[in-house]
Amino acid sequence: MEASFISEAGSNIENPILEQGRIAREMESQGSRLIKINIGDPGMYFQLPKNIAWAYKKAIDEGHTSYLEEQGLKDLRDAVSTRYEDLYGISFSLDNVVVTQGVSEALSFMNQAMIDKGDSAVIFKPFFTEYLTYLKLSNGMGIFPSLDERNGWDIDPDGLEMALKYHKGKKPKYMLITNPNNPTGTALSEKGIRAAIEAAKDNDMYIVSDEVYDEMLHDNATFTSVGKLAKGIPHMLLNGASKNYMATGLRIGFAIFPEEDRKSASIKKAFLGMAGARLSANTPSQYAMLEGLRNREKHQQFLAGKLPQISRQSELAYKLINETGFFNAVKPDSAFYLFARINFDMLGIKDDKEFVELLLREQNVQLTRGSGFGMPGFIRIVTLPSEAVLTDAINRIKRFCEAHQR
Amino acid sequence: MEASFISEAGSNIENPILEQGRIAREMESQGSRLIKINIGDPGMYFQLPKNIAWAYKKAIDEGHTSYLEEQGLKDLRDAVSTRYEDLYGISFSLDNVVVTQGVSEALSFMNQAMIDKGDSAVIFKPFFTEYLTYLKLSNGMGIFPSLDERNGWDIDPDGLEMALKYHKGKKPKYMLITNPNNPTGTALSEKGIRAAIEAAKDNDMYIVSDEVYDEMLHDNATFTSVGKLAKGIPHMLLNGASKNYMATGLRIGFAIFPEEDRKSASIKKAFLGMAGARLSANTPSQYAMLEGLRNREKHQQFLAGKLPQISRQSELAYKLINETGFFNAVKPDSAFYLFARINFDMLGIKDDKEFVELLLREQNVQLTRGSGFGMPGFIRIVTLPSEAVLTDAINRIKRFCEAHQR
Repeated sequence: MEASFISEAGSNIENPILEQGRIAREMESQGSRLIKINIGDPGMYFQLPKNIAWAYKKAIDEGHTSYLEEQGLKDLRDAVSTRYEDLYGISFSLDNVVVTQGVSEALSFMNQAMIDKGDSAVIFKPFFTEYLTYLKLSNGMGIFPSLDERNGWDIDPDGLEMALKYHKGKKPKYMLITNPNNPTGTALSEKGIRAAIEAAKDNDMYIVSDEVYDEMLHDNATFTSVGKLAKGIPHMLLNGASKNYMATGLRIGFAIFPEEDRKSASIKKAFLGMAGARLSANTPSQYAMLEGLRNREKHQQFLAGKLPQISRQSELAYKLINETGFFNAVKPDSAFYLFARINFDMLGIKDDKEFVELLLREQNVQLTRGSGFGMPGFIRIVTLPSEAVLTDAINRIKRFCEAHQR
Repeated sequence: MEASFISEAGSNIENPILEQGRIAREMESQGSRLIKINIGDPGMYFQLPKNIAWAYKKAIDEGHTSYLEEQGLKDLRDAVSTRYEDLYGISFSLDNVVVTQGVSEALSFMNQAMIDKGDSAVIFKPFFTEYLTYLKLSNGMGIFPSLDERNGWDIDPDGLEMALKYHKGKKPKYMLITNPNNPTGTALSEKGIRAAIEAAKDNDMYIVSDEVYDEMLHDNATFTSVGKLAKGIPHMLLNGASKNYMATGLRIGFAIFPEEDRKSASIKKAFLGMAGARLSANTPSQYAMLEGLRNREKHQQFLAGKLPQISRQSELAYKLINETGFFNAVKPDSAFYLFARINFDMLGIKDDKEFVELLLREQNVQLTRGSGFGMPGFIRIVTLPSEAVLTDAINRIKRFCEAHQR
């Protein structure tokens, strides 16, 4: 009955990042203490920046609690424009920004705007889980060229070319770039980005670049916005408050259409239609983020206070996981993830799904399987917890592997 | 180019409630003062209840700014369950509630969960605009039996039967009931609801009942929840914070599955999948609404202080619009809308679309055309502004009609 009653897209939604939630809640209700390194939520580990919290409360005091314009608070859109100008020298009008309920809403709008049943899109793997969820909700199909593990998870132009060459059927509608990447925690090289943009241009694909971690860089890592290299080529940029501002619960994202080409204009029009249908994003959140974006000095201070710690944690987790001997991980240079290849030839475990399930039950450590990011045989560790917690977690992972060694 | 680049669903999204926004903003930028009676946003006219504002700020102070469980804050779901039990004697577990980003997100999830291309759904007209938008975004088609204007916009069992009889193709997936109704401002009779439920049962349609105005009743009006009459019949209820709590900008809705039948269970599963994809609704908003729902006494006091005023305004607008001689309106008994039939035989105006456009340009009054609610030849007036503003607006409408009298 359900099979036909529920829509094709609705029948089969997976949430690999959350799938162990039920087991975890059960274990917790029975008194287990879990180490959760599965959700990339900086809001769990860091307080919201004080000036943002203050502006949030001020907005409530001033009665900013009714609907805003569907496109988003004008001043906030202006601040997004100023941010890209100041940081990357990319100029666009505030009219080319749509405020969304997190980047996820932008992903939902983007797929609904472009994808009809049977359409396809290029998504580099490993990819943020929800890219595929939203593509599938619009009944689209993915083409998944692999990022190059041996080259710091950068774009592999040959692999991309092959994936496009062997794809049958209609041309893919869009190419989705994530930079810095979740789950690998690496920023793409300018060379890699240029290769991707070239391929998109040659194949008439719209470029979508999710840059939500663009200020979460370790040490000397550099970030290059697609907006800087794709001048004259149809593209959109996604960004938001959740990661750079550690404001996950505020649900504020930005969809940016820097170019005024016809494709961008028609996608923006569809975005505004969908934004109109849900009337408004959260109102006080938008005022809060206006302060967050406008007060660049406070934000720099905030980042300067947090990033060294996040980098240290990342470096420690990277070192420890490789030292176990059971994994190979590329050193992250951004975001707060570590993506580690499991050396299955050493273990009596079937696959990454079994790995994370047994690990949760036996060692109380909750993390996400690589297949949830389109790449089986890996695990993703969120490196936001303290060094003590990460050390404990990786010790448990090591003990778990030793217990299952063959 | 755009036609094939943009998806079928994305190509043609209309927002009749917002469509005059551009003209309105232009007029305002040239110094015009507009009377806006087009958006049903109580947050524009009434302050957020003090205890909700207080709880909102407290949540921020206490650091509740990271993601919550995708299904929504457990205590808030519990409070929703308690509310329906206390008000209507309807019992369900907190596990059967999903917190959404406003009722609109629930409408989006609901259609994505049930509608494949070519599927249909029954929506009584006149209907809240976005019901059709979300159905069309899933490539579904509407069947629109008319509510009975001569019988206070109640459900017309014969009209419903005929609409279902003459519908060709697959059985409709769901029937959408709005009670109290937007745009008519009327609550359905128990008899009408029973007839609709019977028809849904006979035709194997899932029932969706949007009850977001259920406490916005004038004087002696009564409200009957579908949940009370549809025991044992698969259905879901929609409700939220926006109208009863005048908390539009908080973006909190509730999707409730009171029955544990297989259809409801499979729809709920799809809802949780989609909720997982966007990770979390706004976090401090959920804490704020927890206070709003839990503190029933404060809420009753709040309503007792506002509803008489809203009723007076509704009654005045109803009286004045009918007195113009150019309209016939049914007396609203709930919500804050007045839906008035334009007597076109008296006017040299083509249709309701031309009517609202000329009215905006000539008299600076912004309201919504009936065709935006599936019923051409009407206008919808939002009766939230003060009696003085409503009187001014309707005087202008009268002058406008006199100027176009033929």
